[in-house]
Amino acid sequence: MSVRELGLPARAPAGWLPDRVTIWEVGARDGLQNEQVALGVEAKIEFLDRLAAAGLTVLEATSFVSPKWVPQLADAEELLAGLARRPGVRYPVLVPNERGLDRALAAGCTEIAIFGSATETFARRNLNSTVDGQFELFEPVVRRALDAGVEVRAYLSMCFGDPWEGVVDVEQVVRVSRRLLDLGCFQLSLGDTIGVATAGQVERLLGALGEAGVGTEALAVHFHDTYGQALTNTLAALRCGVSTVDSSAGGLGGCPYAESATGNLATEDLVWLLDGLGVEHGVDLDALVSTSTWLAERLGRPSPSRVVRALSK
Amino acid sequence: MSVRELGLPARAPAGWLPDRVTIWEVGARDGLQNEQVALGVEAKIEFLDRLAAAGLTVLEATSFVSPKWVPQLADAEELLAGLARRPGVRYPVLVPNERGLDRALAAGCTEIAIFGSATETFARRNLNSTVDGQFELFEPVVRRALDAGVEVRAYLSMCFGDPWEGVVDVEQVVRVSRRLLDLGCFQLSLGDTIGVATAGQVERLLGALGEAGVGTEALAVHFHDTYGQALTNTLAALRCGVSTVDSSAGGLGGCPYAESATGNLATEDLVWLLDGLGVEHGVDLDALVSTSTWLAERLGRPSPSRVVRALSK
Repeated sequence: MSVRELGLPARAPAGWLPDRVTIWEVGARDGLQNEQVALGVEAKIEFLDRLAAAGLTVLEATSFVSPKWVPQLADAEELLAGLARRPGVRYPVLVPNERGLDRALAAGCTEIAIFGSATETFARRNLNSTVDGQFELFEPVVRRALDAGVEVRAYLSMCFGDPWEGVVDVEQVVRVSRRLLDLGCFQLSLGDTIGVATAGQVERLLGALGEAGVGTEALAVHFHDTYGQALTNTLAALRCGVSTVDSSAGGLGGCPYAESATGNLATEDLVWLLDGLGVEHGVDLDALVSTSTWLAERLGRPSPSRVVRALSK
Repeated sequence: MSVRELGLPARAPAGWLPDRVTIWEVGARDGLQNEQVALGVEAKIEFLDRLAAAGLTVLEATSFVSPKWVPQLADAEELLAGLARRPGVRYPVLVPNERGLDRALAAGCTEIAIFGSATETFARRNLNSTVDGQFELFEPVVRRALDAGVEVRAYLSMCFGDPWEGVVDVEQVVRVSRRLLDLGCFQLSLGDTIGVATAGQVERLLGALGEAGVGTEALAVHFHDTYGQALTNTLAALRCGVSTVDSSAGGLGGCPYAESATGNLATEDLVWLLDGLGVEHGVDLDALVSTSTWLAERLGRPSPSRVVRALSK
């Protein structure tokens, strides 16, 4: 058989996997912000509580982005006021700027996430800034958060492909990643925002980050399933040593019947994989499927998750 | 980082991939036989011709199973009589027994596929036989086919999970696999008929087959996407040295809105992965997506392939 080597070496030894994966559940934030139907605040609170009851321990609850941009999450304060926080469960929130941080601190949040762009075009369109300029935005947010005892995660968008710029340069992603972690963020989530990446790209980026001294313990992965690659990319990342994976219950975040189906990796499909691999995750799959089925009814459409469709009657 | 080893070692060196993958396109057979809408013979012929024009070189064209069981493919003779075979394209057909072989030979077929079961329950339900008993059925079919200069592929169903028996014993699969190849079949396609397998199981089975002297050059993989694992399993198999993959254009073979979505791995999603990995396949993705979009309109439902949905306007 003729074979060939693939890019840079993976980080972890071949065939290895983490004993346990932390699922960073983004359904209530990244999922709902992209759904056409806006849920009421009571339904969101019930959704979060059911996710916690199903065993998920990191629930990104909402976003303090301006309601002008994300009307679906305009009820962030009301949601956090009504949410009964469970012991052992973290409820990070997305924060775009100092104004968002003020709101998050006022709402009693103890963990936030900022979001940066790996590409100039997306930095301009999403943040009205540049790749360098965005750090002026982030620096006071992270500093003030850390001073207040609030932990900060960073998202990095467009780590693999960009709809305007095409394939994204690995060295550019490494540079921005290092700067985000250097700000004091405890974790960096590498995002395939438009869902175009494939497994080889994932391995190459993780390899390049490792060469640059960014270990997988500081990394998470965030895949969208636009081209059906999300779970395959996730396995590639686990094999490289990543042990935190972003996903959304039921694959929320993109209508499967719309032209552009850009839903997140479905948490259920991830759990099915982890169960098969014998990797611990702490989630009760039946309870999760039942939650996603309930939510899909509220949203008026079937879940795009294959596992949800297969297991729900 | 705490890590652990996964089952048996993979067959090929870590991180390696085949230079080229042969896509065994099963849409016209495994796909259409599971669709609720029966296509007319002209549409099937156009479908096959468009698949060939898109660069696919192995097209499983139809089945000589009794029309009583698979009414969707009752027009096998008419289809083969009307099909303009392209040079360089193979058109294997499925054959269940000697009666089916007679029909295939009469239709001028030069390549057939038989299908066996790895489990007792499925052997009884699908073949009205047993795991041992099925070989009495296959032996004269394969012998007569080879005598007539017809090449024979074998499918093995339920290699990972069985709806009645649960997880399938690896040693049982290895035993049946060896017997099928010993009959004289040139290739064995390992089927996850109900789509429950995960990557670790795939690696363990391929490892066990290797230990038993069954090299990956005689193997193909055949995954269904019921639980969203088909592409991830495929990558695991490629990494182990497999270079023939079964898939169906547009993910034909299971309605995404039915309770049980059991479609095959979508050829387009596989092509997207292979393109990203730099593995050759010979398929024109745009022409394939356009074919699947055309067929989905005929079938009256959107394609379950993520790539088809993302690329079709």
